Amino acid sequence: MTHEIAVIPGDGIGQEVTPAAIEVLEALDIDFEFVEADAGDAVKAETGEALPEETYELAASADATLFGAAGETAADVILPLRDAVGSFVNIRPAKAYPGIDAVRPETDLVFLRENTEGVYSGHEDRLTNDVSTLTRVVTESASRELAEFACDYVDTDDHDGFTIVHKANVMRETDGLFRDTVAEVADEHGVETDEVLMDAFATHVCLDPEQFDVVVCPNLAGDVLSDLAAGLVGGLGLLPSANVGTERALFEPVHGTAPDIAGEGVANPAAAIISAAMLVEYLGYDEEADAINEAVEATLEEGPRTPDLGGDASTEDVTEAVIDRL
Amino acid sequence: MTHEIAVIPGDGIGQEVTPAAIEVLEALDIDFEFVEADAGDAVKAETGEALPEETYELAASADATLFGAAGETAADVILPLRDAVGSFVNIRPAKAYPGIDAVRPETDLVFLRENTEGVYSGHEDRLTNDVSTLTRVVTESASRELAEFACDYVDTDDHDGFTIVHKANVMRETDGLFRDTVAEVADEHGVETDEVLMDAFATHVCLDPEQFDVVVCPNLAGDVLSDLAAGLVGGLGLLPSANVGTERALFEPVHGTAPDIAGEGVANPAAAIISAAMLVEYLGYDEEADAINEAVEATLEEGPRTPDLGGDASTEDVTEAVIDRL
Ligand SMILES: CC(C)[C@H](C(=O)O)[C@@H](O)C(=O)O
Ligand SMILES: CC(C)[C@H](C(=O)O)[C@@H](O)C(=O)O
Repeated sequence: MTHEIAVIPGDGIGQEVTPAAIEVLEALDIDFEFVEADAGDAVKAETGEALPEETYELAASADATLFGAAGETAADVILPLRDAVGSFVNIRPAKAYPGIDAVRPETDLVFLRENTEGVYSGHEDRLTNDVSTLTRVVTESASRELAEFACDYVDTDDHDGFTIVHKANVMRETDGLFRDTVAEVADEHGVETDEVLMDAFATHVCLDPEQFDVVVCPNLAGDVLSDLAAGLVGGLGLLPSANVGTERALFEPVHGTAPDIAGEGVANPAAAIISAAMLVEYLGYDEEADAINEAVEATLEEGPRTPDLGGDASTEDVTEAVIDRL
Repeated sequence: MTHEIAVIPGDGIGQEVTPAAIEVLEALDIDFEFVEADAGDAVKAETGEALPEETYELAASADATLFGAAGETAADVILPLRDAVGSFVNIRPAKAYPGIDAVRPETDLVFLRENTEGVYSGHEDRLTNDVSTLTRVVTESASRELAEFACDYVDTDDHDGFTIVHKANVMRETDGLFRDTVAEVADEHGVETDEVLMDAFATHVCLDPEQFDVVVCPNLAGDVLSDLAAGLVGGLGLLPSANVGTERALFEPVHGTAPDIAGEGVANPAAAIISAAMLVEYLGYDEEADAINEAVEATLEEGPRTPDLGGDASTEDVTEAVIDRL
């Protein structure tokens, strides 16, 4: 069976780390067909559109998509692409790696971020010269779909349960609906949960990250708190993510385009390669996914390393080292 | 001139640290008249109301208010009290103290948080069984008032400028209005600014807190990011805050009611006392404010210390030590 993979490198180091991830995928004994498409600042400069219609359509029809990064146009690219793959959850693991400097080396978290609504629902108005509004939407159905996914996730991946993070003391109706629905679904599945306010979570995850494991939260909370966790593990450079829907999914490193080093061939491909491992796992190849993750971990620990991790290896050196360890 | 100070100890350790702060104020050569009032879980259990009308009225007419903490009813107490004093900005310094364990000892930040709108504007609806909405409001006038304050603040307190934190790549109209207005006001005043997305701020403040100084942001961003900074400096235990309006202001430690130690006489009064120093400064007594801050810092460094900081002193011991050092 051939898996059609949409490949959207985007801008900056997206153009370097995405091919690296593809090289790793090509080294596996899996039948992929890669179809490349444009998105981001560069294509916008050329055509006026950050996300050409055919790129959207490709992501909406491929079995899975591998995305790199986009610059100024990031929101114009990634939000519609999440929609193209029908993604309702954004999976963001944030763990520290042995041998890599981290503010909190004991951090090992997975965020399951609601991926369609909240303040991202996008209805804004300028009511008067003075007043602007944004309608934040929370639905029971989206909360339920996320919660069902979270219950499956903790069962399959062998976690004790999950923490619901919200701000229902202020957003009583909307985050109240989110919290109550997620807790109720977990209860139906016999999955244990606890809950923490999003501000308290920010304090406590710094003080003692080990008290948390799987975190289920609304869209903006997931955005900010997973980036906070990225800070605790040493930066965005090593974090992968998966935007998962019912029929397809999109995988992307959490980092951006890194304009300061783009084009020099020294970008760290680890996050893109780990994102590719998530893609492989999503398609059902657990062993191959494990093999990639182990090869990346060994390479992070033993080298070669790119300059962001204190080494002087190139993107290509690291990619080859990972492939050699498969 | 007599200054009328509303004193609202609230619940839990609020009942212990607020009297400690009053003791310190009484040791100064300033003419205060303290008027106490109830708020919080205990008064709700008795009367059905977390914030009795007369408490609201007192805060709305006193020159300044010193608040302790409230339990489950925190939002029902503090949000109306911010309104009672007409507060448009919440000042939240977050700095690490010498001798106190901190994840990031080099942290020294001040958050100037918009204090009236954003998702706190509070218009929520359950549109259907499935759909709930919240209307997030951002006005040019509130953004301008905050920005004028921020410009004064950095001038008076001798900072180089400030960082605007927002999420205008997603909340284009609302946070766009916030960002543009704040930047424009700063420009009019010749104050330098830079801007960072709120998720990126969460990463970068962990990796390198020294790159930030004064942070100006919308309401929820200020809530979450100041609590994140609290985590970096070692917890909420030492953080003061000021809710400032045009004619009055309310001061409160950022910590909560600490039910696990309430009633034992060992709560750390430092945050309440530093909040009282902010009150004294607000009333125009800069020297006295400095004296309190220096006395607290010396006490934190040299002791005595309460159990949360590894000591075995009581609230009263620490309070007396601070007064002795005035
Ligand atoms: C680019 C931006 C719209 C996006 C988000 O806010 O979701 C990014 O921060 C992310 O987390 O993937
Ligand atoms: C209690 C709650 C409503 C409040 C807030 O969200 O503002 C608190 O977290 C704070 O930061 O003072």
